[in-house]
Amino acid sequence: MTKIPVAILGATGTVGQNFVRLLADHPWFEIAQLAASADRVGKRYGDEVRWRERTPLPPHVAAMTMSAAVPDGTVRIAFSALDAPQAREIEPAFATAGVLVVSNASAFRMADDVPLLIPEVNADHLALLARQRAERGWSGGIVANPNCSTAALVLALAPLHRAFGLRTVTVATLQAASGAGYPGVPSLDLLGNVIPYIGGEEEKIETETRKLLGALAGDRVVEAAVTVSAMVHRVPVVDGHLVSASLGFATAPSVADARAALAAFRGDDVVTGLPMSPTPVIEVDDRADRPQSRLDLDRGAGMAITVGRVRPCPLAHLRLTALGHNLVRGAAGAAVQNAELLVARGVV
Amino acid sequence: MTKIPVAILGATGTVGQNFVRLLADHPWFEIAQLAASADRVGKRYGDEVRWRERTPLPPHVAAMTMSAAVPDGTVRIAFSALDAPQAREIEPAFATAGVLVVSNASAFRMADDVPLLIPEVNADHLALLARQRAERGWSGGIVANPNCSTAALVLALAPLHRAFGLRTVTVATLQAASGAGYPGVPSLDLLGNVIPYIGGEEEKIETETRKLLGALAGDRVVEAAVTVSAMVHRVPVVDGHLVSASLGFATAPSVADARAALAAFRGDDVVTGLPMSPTPVIEVDDRADRPQSRLDLDRGAGMAITVGRVRPCPLAHLRLTALGHNLVRGAAGAAVQNAELLVARGVV
Amino acid sequence: MTKIPVAILGATGTVGQNFVRLLADHPWFEIAQLAASADRVGKRYGDEVRWRERTPLPPHVAAMTMSAAVPDGTVRIAFSALDAPQAREIEPAFATAGVLVVSNASAFRMADDVPLLIPEVNADHLALLARQRAERGWSGGIVANPNCSTAALVLALAPLHRAFGLRTVTVATLQAASGAGYPGVPSLDLLGNVIPYIGGEEEKIETETRKLLGALAGDRVVEAAVTVSAMVHRVPVVDGHLVSASLGFATAPSVADARAALAAFRGDDVVTGLPMSPTPVIEVDDRADRPQSRLDLDRGAGMAITVGRVRPCPLAHLRLTALGHNLVRGAAGAAVQNAELLVARGVV
Amino acid sequence: MTKIPVAILGATGTVGQNFVRLLADHPWFEIAQLAASADRVGKRYGDEVRWRERTPLPPHVAAMTMSAAVPDGTVRIAFSALDAPQAREIEPAFATAGVLVVSNASAFRMADDVPLLIPEVNADHLALLARQRAERGWSGGIVANPNCSTAALVLALAPLHRAFGLRTVTVATLQAASGAGYPGVPSLDLLGNVIPYIGGEEEKIETETRKLLGALAGDRVVEAAVTVSAMVHRVPVVDGHLVSASLGFATAPSVADARAALAAFRGDDVVTGLPMSPTPVIEVDDRADRPQSRLDLDRGAGMAITVGRVRPCPLAHLRLTALGHNLVRGAAGAAVQNAELLVARGVV
Repeated sequence: MTKIPVAILGATGTVGQNFVRLLADHPWFEIAQLAASADRVGKRYGDEVRWRERTPLPPHVAAMTMSAAVPDGTVRIAFSALDAPQAREIEPAFATAGVLVVSNASAFRMADDVPLLIPEVNADHLALLARQRAERGWSGGIVANPNCSTAALVLALAPLHRAFGLRTVTVATLQAASGAGYPGVPSLDLLGNVIPYIGGEEEKIETETRKLLGALAGDRVVEAAVTVSAMVHRVPVVDGHLVSASLGFATAPSVADARAALAAFRGDDVVTGLPMSPTPVIEVDDRADRPQSRLDLDRGAGMAITVGRVRPCPLAHLRLTALGHNLVRGAAGAAVQNAELLVARGVV
Repeated sequence: MTKIPVAILGATGTVGQNFVRLLADHPWFEIAQLAASADRVGKRYGDEVRWRERTPLPPHVAAMTMSAAVPDGTVRIAFSALDAPQAREIEPAFATAGVLVVSNASAFRMADDVPLLIPEVNADHLALLARQRAERGWSGGIVANPNCSTAALVLALAPLHRAFGLRTVTVATLQAASGAGYPGVPSLDLLGNVIPYIGGEEEKIETETRKLLGALAGDRVVEAAVTVSAMVHRVPVVDGHLVSASLGFATAPSVADARAALAAFRGDDVVTGLPMSPTPVIEVDDRADRPQSRLDLDRGAGMAITVGRVRPCPLAHLRLTALGHNLVRGAAGAAVQNAELLVARGVV
Repeated sequence: MTKIPVAILGATGTVGQNFVRLLADHPWFEIAQLAASADRVGKRYGDEVRWRERTPLPPHVAAMTMSAAVPDGTVRIAFSALDAPQAREIEPAFATAGVLVVSNASAFRMADDVPLLIPEVNADHLALLARQRAERGWSGGIVANPNCSTAALVLALAPLHRAFGLRTVTVATLQAASGAGYPGVPSLDLLGNVIPYIGGEEEKIETETRKLLGALAGDRVVEAAVTVSAMVHRVPVVDGHLVSASLGFATAPSVADARAALAAFRGDDVVTGLPMSPTPVIEVDDRADRPQSRLDLDRGAGMAITVGRVRPCPLAHLRLTALGHNLVRGAAGAAVQNAELLVARGVV
Repeated sequence: MTKIPVAILGATGTVGQNFVRLLADHPWFEIAQLAASADRVGKRYGDEVRWRERTPLPPHVAAMTMSAAVPDGTVRIAFSALDAPQAREIEPAFATAGVLVVSNASAFRMADDVPLLIPEVNADHLALLARQRAERGWSGGIVANPNCSTAALVLALAPLHRAFGLRTVTVATLQAASGAGYPGVPSLDLLGNVIPYIGGEEEKIETETRKLLGALAGDRVVEAAVTVSAMVHRVPVVDGHLVSASLGFATAPSVADARAALAAFRGDDVVTGLPMSPTPVIEVDDRADRPQSRLDLDRGAGMAITVGRVRPCPLAHLRLTALGHNLVRGAAGAAVQNAELLVARGVV
């Protein structure tokens, strides 16, 4: 089988490096283009990247020459690790040229014709793509994955929402340094410290959650009637976003029913068969002190989330803690899984 | 003026060391007894303590000989840094012998005849002491300060409760390592990690808050009708407990009114005049990313709390973040301030 | 091929968990016995272990019942993660019963009839085993691997010693928390801190290095005439021991020759073919700021060491920095590789 | 007494903030000018600085307006926290205008007419200033303090050099994040990690040590005949540089004699009387595991160093570990003490 040629936009950053790691030996995709800013065009990727992963940089990718961030006529999918302002310029150019942009950027996530996807949660939202193409006149298109902390949260919420009708979420996040990219947070700000602020993050969690849990109605997504209040924190952890939430429902679930719904959660058969999809999707951990950021982030190769401490809430109905790998399930892995969904559904 | 001779019960631990630090040069108190477990009786404090403070161990305390944890007939106040099981045995023995035990232990906090005090918040609850003495036949007594994370939280809640009638609190805590004492949490559990569990902590926050904000009715405290839901986390920070909360009120306050109430908060004149009382009690910090655990914990010599990020809440009325020094305002400093209150009110 | 049944002595600790991880799917070995202290005998391993690895506990090991630390008549190799005092009792009992004890304990490392082995460095020292058996009347025996920081250091020294005749080593170590086991170092001692002391560690580095680099003469090892001065430090790193050394030689090497000798280092063909043996053994990294503890510890699945900053020394001849995974190359992985050597050499 | 008006050059950075902290209430000096880069001129210091100290920004300094980095005609001393390239331009301009520049920059440290001073060690080197003024035609001048890691090292070496004739130093440093300034080292590079490289640092330690320990001969300093080999490391510690060294001498000292020389070390009477001078200068700590970075850095208000683990060396004569506060004794505090020396000696 011939692999599908793909581009990575923004390949040298923290998320870009995870794209390289996940795509270097991917069964369906082949890295054909590494797009970089103008000053790096023509240079060898291995010379320019400050590789921060614990697994080595694959030599065949290290040897690739970086090109400008313009469609090269061969790639059919572009994985975007661009910052939002760059994404607003570059992603439409690729979409216009017939490329499917699978984006980790926030630029188009909330556009009402852009599918914001977590395959196990709302694969049907892919239907927005047809409208997007029609209205924008694109032969390609843009598909987004959520913000890194939203990803872990919504995976824990989705099965509970389906079963019991989620109404309210009060969530505190404890987010890792790598969520801010590189160089990101200075060590003087994070060593032995907590920063209770990440610009724009609370708003992203509050709005993206409603879209992700929304229902498809024709060619529109009707946002879920869930009110979300987020309080975010940066903590001195390398990777892994932990979220603790208090949840209210239309129908009050028992702890046992909630645990069962979480453990049974899976996507449809197409989703379950994607190379990036973990089994199980949610690992329910009954130990009193789990999940923990450093110990549980690699479950399901970083694509599973771990949920623990499911217990009653004195105010709402349930409390729980969830953990996800912010660079995998919360960024590059999410985008690769979305691209796999596009292939499996015949869009690519 | 002759200083009042005092004892420290449990002087070698993390809280005990802070008692030593705060009492070594106290204007009103003089350390007369350092009580220790049986195997340390007769030994020199300086030889036995594994001093962890950044300020040096005062030589005159280092030279003291440790004694058994029994009243020696001279001390009039005993500061207790005992574990709860020890406290249940030893504190009543001191109270029976006429000593006022100012305790950081959880053993008697929720007993309905024991004042659980934060002087700026509920100094009037000291009235319980008369009932305690009468009913228990003690010539001394026990006065408690709250749990370390509760202390910072309730100081932020109290002025808002007074002004707007607090009804609901959903709070996430990010607690420092020193809250677990020494040796406490193994470094393998906390380096680059978050632990979303501290045994019994959520229950303490939920119950102590109601008692602290309660109203004195005759010789009883009627707990406040506030529902609290706590989600606790241990984070890799040395000192300083940070709490982020979503708050609901009987009367919805504006952000400006809430900030004003916080900034104006003070105890009565007696409380304001105590040596340990900080001015202001609450530092309202308007910078977007404050308070921060490592940077703001020493304000007011560790007795002030810092409140920031006062903002609306999509679900309840307000969100905010508060920070307090867990070993000072949350433990030893709180007890010393309580003892000062006892002196200022003429109880000692 | 039938796998060789093996025991793990001390299976619940930090090193023991790495034995479980490395042996659970080993091509040659099968875990047949998990030996535990008396209070755990008869209990399920999965219930007793506080699993700290980032990869999940293999279910078939979790389900095993722990037994007493006595030879069960079936295991042919015992991997020892015992503390030295326990090892002094238990390891000889297994050796007497015909079991080959492959030990990570320090108890017998410096005994002159016990091979202290790093297969790539001194596989010929295995010849001591015959004398050990003859003199002690054991049908089994004891083979040891070095201390965790010594392992990384000596791998970097060995090729240079062979080529240029090592004479002096001044080495500073920056050692990870996991080297102290669990619970090990309290977080209050290690968060944002450096501790310039590890009991007995400097002596181990100084003596073990001379034995490891020694020459076999008949049935004896003549220690190398290398003088070692060690200065050890515990640093707030989870895993990975970093060592920086200043080296003096009989023949002064150029930096280029030293780098070449390091990069070319390999064991004999038998050693190279062992499942645990990495290729290359030493990764020479030319980047100015490498190796780094967190980024380079997993090279060669934790069995390779990384050497960088090879440069002249104003006082001796060369300076360099080496990094090894203390739980793999420095403990459990080293012992498994030693056991593989025993099998490949026909001792088992 | 009228205070001497002083300027701070580079007032917003990490070292600049420590100048502000130390000078805000200084008995002899008064901050009259806060010099900043062009884009900040005319702005309020409190609005521009990202204050990172644990003590609050003094309000009267916060209210000051920043000016250009040119002599304003009133200040008599300028404290420089400039980067080396800026220092090369700006410091001579102040010196020409009659201002004494007390510099923490590396730009002129090794110039042979610039005093590189640690008052307790080599106050007599101040004699270079006369030559500097004569040869350069300056009515002011430049006086420098050493690099942050050199400062702690040389304070430990000086008394031993005086007593026993130091010949060789092999030193490993474990340096805190704040030594790199702000933003400095990204948290992704330092959380749970060690970086064995700091650009130019090893050379600074090796050359500055020889100059600091050198002897004044007429109007020249003859560098000490000490060979220094440095191996530097950045570790995840906020403040405090720890150095471990192996030392060789002309006359081999006993451990007891070395300890006595360290403990007895003091400057001359003028130096001892300076406001910033600590007593003792060196705290010799006999506990096996001290000094520790986080616990011992504040001794002598950050101006004392702590030396521990004085013990024999198998290769050279002695090993020891020293700790100093890199922002106080290693930067701003050193410069303030140098300025005090200039005043006490009548140069200002």
